[in-house]
Amino acid sequence: MFNNEPHIRSAFDHDLEGVQAMVMKMGGLVETAMLDAAQALDTRDEELAQRVRQGDKVIDALEEQIHTECARLIALRSPTATDLRTVLTVMRMAANLERCGDYAKNLAKRGTILAQMSPIEGATGSIRRMTKVVVLMLKDALDAYIARDPELASDVRQRDREVDQMYNALFREFLTHMLEDARNITACMHLHFIAKNIERVGDHATGIAEQVIYLVQGKLPEDDRPKDSGITALSAASVSGS
Amino acid sequence: MFNNEPHIRSAFDHDLEGVQAMVMKMGGLVETAMLDAAQALDTRDEELAQRVRQGDKVIDALEEQIHTECARLIALRSPTATDLRTVLTVMRMAANLERCGDYAKNLAKRGTILAQMSPIEGATGSIRRMTKVVVLMLKDALDAYIARDPELASDVRQRDREVDQMYNALFREFLTHMLEDARNITACMHLHFIAKNIERVGDHATGIAEQVIYLVQGKLPEDDRPKDSGITALSAASVSGS
Repeated sequence: MFNNEPHIRSAFDHDLEGVQAMVMKMGGLVETAMLDAAQALDTRDEELAQRVRQGDKVIDALEEQIHTECARLIALRSPTATDLRTVLTVMRMAANLERCGDYAKNLAKRGTILAQMSPIEGATGSIRRMTKVVVLMLKDALDAYIARDPELASDVRQRDREVDQMYNALFREFLTHMLEDARNITACMHLHFIAKNIERVGDHATGIAEQVIYLVQGKLPEDDRPKDSGITALSAASVSGS
Repeated sequence: MFNNEPHIRSAFDHDLEGVQAMVMKMGGLVETAMLDAAQALDTRDEELAQRVRQGDKVIDALEEQIHTECARLIALRSPTATDLRTVLTVMRMAANLERCGDYAKNLAKRGTILAQMSPIEGATGSIRRMTKVVVLMLKDALDAYIARDPELASDVRQRDREVDQMYNALFREFLTHMLEDARNITACMHLHFIAKNIERVGDHATGIAEQVIYLVQGKLPEDDRPKDSGITALSAASVSGS
């Protein structure tokens, strides 16, 4: 039944398209969850935050489904070479998206708590802008996968630096608020965790982009992308703040 | 050549054993990296911290090697059912371990920075104790995989609560130091990140344990394990601290 080469290809392609559609759906849900959570934080919208928290279950279930479907696809179609690499990439992408969903849920939870505290001037607006940047990275990384477009993937990878810079700027801002008034400490700790998690979503988008590059070109770009920027920000802040 | 059933089995088993040995080696390296990084933090040992940072490259390379080897194994042996599930579990475990290696490297980096600051009383000793707990979880989770022992895996899963409690206690301690003296803020932020990352290593150990349970029993335990404890700690602290 599976000895006819074109028939195998087409059955594999059909299955792969199905599982890719699930990943794209998952990506869309994660993007919406991130934007909604950031909006709920900014407008203190308790109901919207609650919806985001509930919605993470759907995202988690989709990941499990993608994982199962990919395993089924491998067992049934025995893909090799590029086809196998593609299926394994899809599984990794789904794992990345699942983590991003967790971050959106965490953002929504912290938003609910922050709504009970005095606001920190300008903070939630900045967080919302940073969220929009990483969500676009996520979207472009998934589009790069579908189009097998290494240029777009490289572009996503480059934009991660911008996110790191936004995170560093926010970090210094929060630290200043904490140093100025100890009553800001708790709120700023929450805000800082939020900023860090959004930065991590950017890292996951970059991870997806790198997998696309690897899939198309068979190797990863050689230059190391910048990492652990938070540590640098904290060192710099410790100099200026002490 | 691969039509003889027992021959396929034995070739698959042979390959699987090879890749499992790599995962165990990776696990050992991650455990040592975590313990060394915590020791370097506690004893302000710059040289040891540097060695941990360098060592992460080896861990990353092992993950890539395991990933490639698993892909080769799938393509060559076309495993199905439990065999396929096992290979996919091995890939997921390697990804978990790779993240833990990143956390160890991050701990070492922050240790280097903290060595330049005034010590926070008792903090690094507590961090070291917490590290020992999560490292043992990681070791037991991997042992549970090798022995296909769901009891041991369940035990690891239960111990994650203990880690969450240790994290919450540390968190409150650091917050108290920050509220007491603004000059402690920067060091406490680093310490807090460290504690959070160690807690995440516990989450990864739990993740591996759950994959073992899934592999052996075909389903995950139904009860949700506790999550996002950091948020709760921060809420509680905000009440007592304001």
